[in-house]
Amino acid sequence: MAGTLNVGMIGYGLMGRAHSNAWSKVAAFFDVDRRPVLKAACGRDADEVGAFAARWGYESVETDWRRLIERADVDAVDICAPNNLHREMAVAAAAAGKMVLCEKPLATGGEEGLEMVRAVERAGVPNMVWYNYRRIPAVTLARRLIEQGRLGKIFHFRAVFLQDWTMSPELPQGGAALWRLDAHAAGSGVTGDLLAHCIDTAAWLNGPVACVSATTETFIRQRMHNLTGKVEPVGIDDACAFMARFANGSLATFEATRYARGHKAKYTFEINGQDASIFWNLHDLHRLEYFDHRDESRLRGCRSIHVTDGDHPYMDHWWVPGLQIGYEHSFIHQLADFLAGLSEGQPAAPTFRDALATQRVCDAVLASAADGRWVDVGYD
Amino acid sequence: MAGTLNVGMIGYGLMGRAHSNAWSKVAAFFDVDRRPVLKAACGRDADEVGAFAARWGYESVETDWRRLIERADVDAVDICAPNNLHREMAVAAAAAGKMVLCEKPLATGGEEGLEMVRAVERAGVPNMVWYNYRRIPAVTLARRLIEQGRLGKIFHFRAVFLQDWTMSPELPQGGAALWRLDAHAAGSGVTGDLLAHCIDTAAWLNGPVACVSATTETFIRQRMHNLTGKVEPVGIDDACAFMARFANGSLATFEATRYARGHKAKYTFEINGQDASIFWNLHDLHRLEYFDHRDESRLRGCRSIHVTDGDHPYMDHWWVPGLQIGYEHSFIHQLADFLAGLSEGQPAAPTFRDALATQRVCDAVLASAADGRWVDVGYD
Amino acid sequence: MAGTLNVGMIGYGLMGRAHSNAWSKVAAFFDVDRRPVLKAACGRDADEVGAFAARWGYESVETDWRRLIERADVDAVDICAPNNLHREMAVAAAAAGKMVLCEKPLATGGEEGLEMVRAVERAGVPNMVWYNYRRIPAVTLARRLIEQGRLGKIFHFRAVFLQDWTMSPELPQGGAALWRLDAHAAGSGVTGDLLAHCIDTAAWLNGPVACVSATTETFIRQRMHNLTGKVEPVGIDDACAFMARFANGSLATFEATRYARGHKAKYTFEINGQDASIFWNLHDLHRLEYFDHRDESRLRGCRSIHVTDGDHPYMDHWWVPGLQIGYEHSFIHQLADFLAGLSEGQPAAPTFRDALATQRVCDAVLASAADGRWVDVGYD
Amino acid sequence: MAGTLNVGMIGYGLMGRAHSNAWSKVAAFFDVDRRPVLKAACGRDADEVGAFAARWGYESVETDWRRLIERADVDAVDICAPNNLHREMAVAAAAAGKMVLCEKPLATGGEEGLEMVRAVERAGVPNMVWYNYRRIPAVTLARRLIEQGRLGKIFHFRAVFLQDWTMSPELPQGGAALWRLDAHAAGSGVTGDLLAHCIDTAAWLNGPVACVSATTETFIRQRMHNLTGKVEPVGIDDACAFMARFANGSLATFEATRYARGHKAKYTFEINGQDASIFWNLHDLHRLEYFDHRDESRLRGCRSIHVTDGDHPYMDHWWVPGLQIGYEHSFIHQLADFLAGLSEGQPAAPTFRDALATQRVCDAVLASAADGRWVDVGYD
Repeated sequence: MAGTLNVGMIGYGLMGRAHSNAWSKVAAFFDVDRRPVLKAACGRDADEVGAFAARWGYESVETDWRRLIERADVDAVDICAPNNLHREMAVAAAAAGKMVLCEKPLATGGEEGLEMVRAVERAGVPNMVWYNYRRIPAVTLARRLIEQGRLGKIFHFRAVFLQDWTMSPELPQGGAALWRLDAHAAGSGVTGDLLAHCIDTAAWLNGPVACVSATTETFIRQRMHNLTGKVEPVGIDDACAFMARFANGSLATFEATRYARGHKAKYTFEINGQDASIFWNLHDLHRLEYFDHRDESRLRGCRSIHVTDGDHPYMDHWWVPGLQIGYEHSFIHQLADFLAGLSEGQPAAPTFRDALATQRVCDAVLASAADGRWVDVGYD
Repeated sequence: MAGTLNVGMIGYGLMGRAHSNAWSKVAAFFDVDRRPVLKAACGRDADEVGAFAARWGYESVETDWRRLIERADVDAVDICAPNNLHREMAVAAAAAGKMVLCEKPLATGGEEGLEMVRAVERAGVPNMVWYNYRRIPAVTLARRLIEQGRLGKIFHFRAVFLQDWTMSPELPQGGAALWRLDAHAAGSGVTGDLLAHCIDTAAWLNGPVACVSATTETFIRQRMHNLTGKVEPVGIDDACAFMARFANGSLATFEATRYARGHKAKYTFEINGQDASIFWNLHDLHRLEYFDHRDESRLRGCRSIHVTDGDHPYMDHWWVPGLQIGYEHSFIHQLADFLAGLSEGQPAAPTFRDALATQRVCDAVLASAADGRWVDVGYD
Repeated sequence: MAGTLNVGMIGYGLMGRAHSNAWSKVAAFFDVDRRPVLKAACGRDADEVGAFAARWGYESVETDWRRLIERADVDAVDICAPNNLHREMAVAAAAAGKMVLCEKPLATGGEEGLEMVRAVERAGVPNMVWYNYRRIPAVTLARRLIEQGRLGKIFHFRAVFLQDWTMSPELPQGGAALWRLDAHAAGSGVTGDLLAHCIDTAAWLNGPVACVSATTETFIRQRMHNLTGKVEPVGIDDACAFMARFANGSLATFEATRYARGHKAKYTFEINGQDASIFWNLHDLHRLEYFDHRDESRLRGCRSIHVTDGDHPYMDHWWVPGLQIGYEHSFIHQLADFLAGLSEGQPAAPTFRDALATQRVCDAVLASAADGRWVDVGYD
Repeated sequence: MAGTLNVGMIGYGLMGRAHSNAWSKVAAFFDVDRRPVLKAACGRDADEVGAFAARWGYESVETDWRRLIERADVDAVDICAPNNLHREMAVAAAAAGKMVLCEKPLATGGEEGLEMVRAVERAGVPNMVWYNYRRIPAVTLARRLIEQGRLGKIFHFRAVFLQDWTMSPELPQGGAALWRLDAHAAGSGVTGDLLAHCIDTAAWLNGPVACVSATTETFIRQRMHNLTGKVEPVGIDDACAFMARFANGSLATFEATRYARGHKAKYTFEINGQDASIFWNLHDLHRLEYFDHRDESRLRGCRSIHVTDGDHPYMDHWWVPGLQIGYEHSFIHQLADFLAGLSEGQPAAPTFRDALATQRVCDAVLASAADGRWVDVGYD
C-alpha cells in the first residue's frame, strides 16, 4: 500500500452510512494502493454529524459543505446530499480540484447534469456516480456473459422496481427523512429514485436507449409537508411505466412504483437473447437465473446460479462458496474499482458522463409521460 | 341425468383435441343434467377427420361444416377452426338455432366480432368463447378474492405471455399446422393469440380497460409460406407490449412475445392492491402466490398456495389435496360451467359479448401500435 | 386397433376413480392394439357401485368380487380394494386366468406378497402393480438420465413423503373412507402407504436396498374406530424414518409422516452423483431439478426443467410445450405401457415380483423399527 | 461508549478474517459500551500474520500464542486455531483471566470440552463459542416464534448440511488449508464441522437431543497428506446421517455430507409443529419460510418471509427493508450480543457449557455409527 486517500463525506443518512462502510472496509478485502482515511464528515446538524463521525471513525467534522471542500487535507469528496444539492456541491468540489463521488441520480435533470459533467471534465478530476447495483456479482456476471456474446442477439429487456413503503396516506413528505417524496428536493419520484437504477443497469448491459413512451401516476395527490407543516400537493410520480426501444433494436418495458404491496425493493430485470436468457432479482441478489438454449434439448431449464464461487466476479475477496454477501458489498466493490482505476489511470464507470446518459433517459421518460407520445432520447 | 346434448365439432387440431377431451370427461367428474354425446366431427380431410373421430369416439364424420350445422341431431356446434373462419361458421350455426361454442379469439377484429354477437343474440342461442384460463382453479380463486374485496383498491396490473417457439428463421408460415403465423388466417400475431388471453383474464379480474398505448415488433420479416411455397412477408406481430389504464384507475403493463428464449408458455399476471397482492404463472398453474398486508408485520411474506384443496374452486371434483391437475382441466371446468348455465338458464361467461370487449381492446392495441399514441378502447 | 380388452374393476374409491379414468382415456392419447372396454364394476354397496358404473360408463355391476372374477367377458381384473384383500382377490383372479392389475402396496407383508407372485407366475398371466409415480414424466426422465450414466457414481439418495391430513385427534379410524388408518385393513401406516412409493421409485432409480435402520412413531395413540364405534388403540405408524444402504454403496435417508403441517402430498427425492444431481417434488411434479457439474464452472446452477416438451417422456402424447399435465396422467402412462407390453409380449414394470422387493424393504423397515438395529433386506 | 476492549486474535484463516471483520465493524452498527480494539494478532508464520495484522489494523503481532495470552494489554482471546488446539489455548487463556471466545466446535470430543468448561467456569471469565448461525436474523426469528408457542407441539425436525467441495480424489488432506480433512487436527469430518452447527441450532430451537442412531461413510479412503507427503488413510467421515429423538418427543433426521454434487453450503432445517411449520436454507439465508395452519383454509400457503424489515431481529441496525445482509453479519450480531452481555452481566449464548452439550451429541453420533445402535446422549 503506497499511500492514503483522504475522504470528505457530505451527508450522514442511509447513503452516508453505506458509503462510509465501503470506505472503511475496502482495504481489508481488496488490495488497494491508496488506503482510505476518513478525514471529515459534513452535515448541517452539529450533534448528529458529530455522533456519525464518532461512530464511523471520521477524524473531524464540518457543518458547512463549502468548508469541507476547501480543506487541503481532503482528496475526495463524497456527496450523499439530496439530489437538488448535487450540482452545486459537485461543481464546487471539482473547481477545488477534488475527486468527486456523487450518489445517484447525478442530478434532478439533464441540464444540471451536463453542467456537472463539464465541471469535472474541465477540472480533470476523477469522478464517479454510485450506481452500485452494477457491482453486485450476479449483475456483473450478467454483463460479462453479454460481452462474450453468450446471449446472442438481444430481443427483449424488461425491468421492474417495486416497493410499497409510501402507500399510507398518513406518510408526510419532505424534510431530512422524507426528501425523496418532495419534488423540490428529489426532482422526481420513482423515475429518478428507482428507474434511474434500472436504466443505468440496462444501458450497461444492453447499450443505449433510443426512444421511450411513458406514463406516470401519483396515487396520493396531497400529503402533509414536513417543512411547512401544511397539506400540500404531491409533485412526484408514485409510479412510472415506460416502453423503450434500444439502439440495438430490442424492445423493452420498464416499471417502477411504490404502490406494489408486498415488495420492499424488488428490482428485477430479464434479458432474452437468441441463444440465452438471464433474470436477476435484488431480493435474491446472490443468484443469477440463466437459461442456455445450447444445452441438450430435454435437459434445458433455467439455471439458478448461486453466485458465490471463487470464479464469480468479486467473490474471491470474500468467504467460501455458498456463503452470501449482501447489499452493502456492492458499494465496496464499486469503491475497489474506483481505487483500482486511480492506480491504473482509468476512470471507473459510471463516470459523471455515463450517468448523464441515464439522466437523459429519465428526462425523456418524464417528457413522454407529459404528452403521451414517443420521445427520442437525446445524448450529448 | 335428465338427457343428452349432441355435439358437433369443427376442427381436429390442438383445440379440437382439448375440447373433445372436455366433452368426453365432464360427466365423469361433474354432475350434469345433459350428458354430452360426441355426435359428429368435421374437417376438410376425410382421412384425418375419420381417424380423429375414431380416436375420440365421435359417431360420425362430416367434411363440410355447413352440413354439420344443418344436421338435426346436433345441438351444439364447437368451432375450433382458424380465426378467420369463426364469423361465418358462428353466424350460420346461430341462424340454424344451434348453441355455439367458439375457440378464442372471437374473431380477427371487432367488426367481425360484433356481427357474431348480433347473430347469437338475435337467435337467442347459448354461446361461449373458450377463454379457458379463467377456469384454472388458481385464477378462479384470484377472482373470488378480488370480488370479496380482499385486495382493496387496485393500483397495478401486469401481465406477460412469453414463448420462444418461432425464433428460428427456418420455420415457415401458414397451412394447417402454422396458420397462427399467417396474418390472413390469424388476424394478428401474439396480440390475438396470447394477449387476448391476458386481456380476458385482466378484464375479468380488474374490470374494463379504458385506454392503451402499444408497440409491436416483427423480428423476422420474411418466411417461407406453406400455402404458396414462396418466401413472403410476415404480416403478424412477433411481439407486442402495451401500457394501459383500467376504468378503475389502475395502471397496467402487458407484453407478449414469441422471442423470449427459455419460456414455453409463461403467462403470468400480478395484481397489487391496497391490502394484498396476487401473482400467478401458467408454468406452475396449480399455485397462487398471495401476499396479505394484514398479516402480522414480521411474519408477512408471499404465500405459495398449492391450489389443490377441496375448498379451492373446482378441486372437490378431482383427487385429494396436494395432487395437481393440469392444463386440460380448465376446458373441463369451463364446459361444466356451460352445462350448469344451461340448466340454470344463465349463460356461462365469457359469452360472445364478453369476448367482444376483449376484441375491442386488441383492436385498440393494434391501432395504438400503428400510430404511437394512446387510444381509447371503444365498447359496444 | 386390433381388438378390445374387457376390464373388471374392484373398488370405487379414490383409486377406483383414478384407474377408471386411465382405462377410459388411454386410447384417445396413445395408440393401443387393444382398446379397453369398461365391462363391469364391482363393490359391496349396490347403490354406490351402480352410481359409479353409470358415471364412468361401466356396462354392468357386480357386488361380489368372486362373481366378477368368474365372468367370461372379463379379461383383466383391476384391484382397488383395501390392502388386506389384495392377496385373496389376486390369487383367485390369477387362478381364473385373468390379467391382474393391483393397487399398491402389493400386500400387507412379504409372505402374502410372495403367495401372490407365485399365483400370477404359476398362472402365467400378465400382472402389474400401480406404483404410478414412476410414470410421471419428470421421474421417468430421471430414470433415463441415470441409465445413461449422466449422474456417474451415486453417493446419496434422500426421500421424504410429508402429509398433514391426520393431525386432528378428532379424526376416527377405519371404515370405507379411513381404512388407511386401520392397521388391520392397511397392514401399516405411512410405511405401506407412503414409503412404499418412495422405495419403489428409489429401487427403480438406484437399484436394490441392502439394509435399513428405522424408527417409527404413533403420535396419536387412540382414535374412535368407525367399525366398532369405540375408542381403540391406533395400530399404524404415523411417522417412519429410516437410513439405508443401497447395494451400490450409496447412503440414503427416507422419512414419511402425516404430521408435517403444511404439506399435503410432498413427496420429494434427491440423488447426488459424482457428476450430477437431481431433485423432484410431487407438489410440482412437472419439473425436474437438475445440476450438471460438467457445465462451465461459473455458470453451474440447478436447472429447473419444465418437463413438458415433446422430447420428454410421454409428453408427445399431450398438448404443447409449457402446458402441464397432472397426477392422473401417471396412471394413463402406466396403463399405456401395460397395453404396449401386452402387444410386445414384455411385461410392464413393476410386476408383482418387482413390487415384492418393495414389500421386503417395508418389512425390513418395520422389523428394524421394532428392535432398533440394522436389518438386512431379504429378497427372493 | 464507556471504554474499550482489547482483543487478541489467534489464527488468520477463514475464521480469523470473519471474526476480525466482526470486531472491527460491530461498533459502527451497534451501540456498545466497550469498543473493540484490535490489539494483537497471533500466528506461527511471522510474515503471514504480519500481513494479516496490517490488513485488518491489528496494532501488533505475536507468533507464540502463549505470549499473546500473557499480555496484560489483552482483555479477550479469540481462538481461531484448528480444533485440536482449542483445549490447551482456552484453558491457558482462562487461567490468565482472559475472556475466551472460541471457534466451533468447542473441542474434538466431550472430555476435552468438559475440561474447557471447567476452566472458564473456575476462572469466572466470560466465554462464548462461535456458533454464528443462531444470529442469522431468519434463524433468530424462528427461535422467537417457537418461544412464543407459534408452532405448538413439535412433531418433526429435519436438517441437512450438504457440500461438494471434497469430491475430487486429487484433493490432499492436512496442513494449514486442509486441516479439516485431517482427523488428527479436526477430530472428525462432517460431524464436527457441519453437523455440530445443525445440532447447535436444533437444540436452541427444539431443546435437548435424547438419543441418536447414526451411520457414517468415508467415500474416499486414502488421500495424499500435506504434512507427510504420502498417501495416507483418511480418518474423517465424509458423510454422516442420523435419526434422533428429542426430549420433547419429536422425531428428527440429520444428514451432512461433502459429496452432494451441486451444493456449496446448503444447510437447511425444517420444523413441523401442531400449528405451524418453518423452513430455512443457508443458501437463501435472508428468507424464512413459514406456514401457519391458523390462516384461512383456502389461503394457506408457505410464506416466504424476506427477513429484512426493521422489526426483524437485528435488522434495524442495517439498511432499509428489502436489502439483504449476508453471512458475515451473523458474526457481528453474535459479537454485539456478547458485548451487550458483558454490559448486562449476562453471558451470551452459546457459552462453553452450551457448546459442550452439542459436543456430547456429536460424541453419541460417532459412537452410534461405530456400533449400529441407538445411543443415549449423556449430558453433564
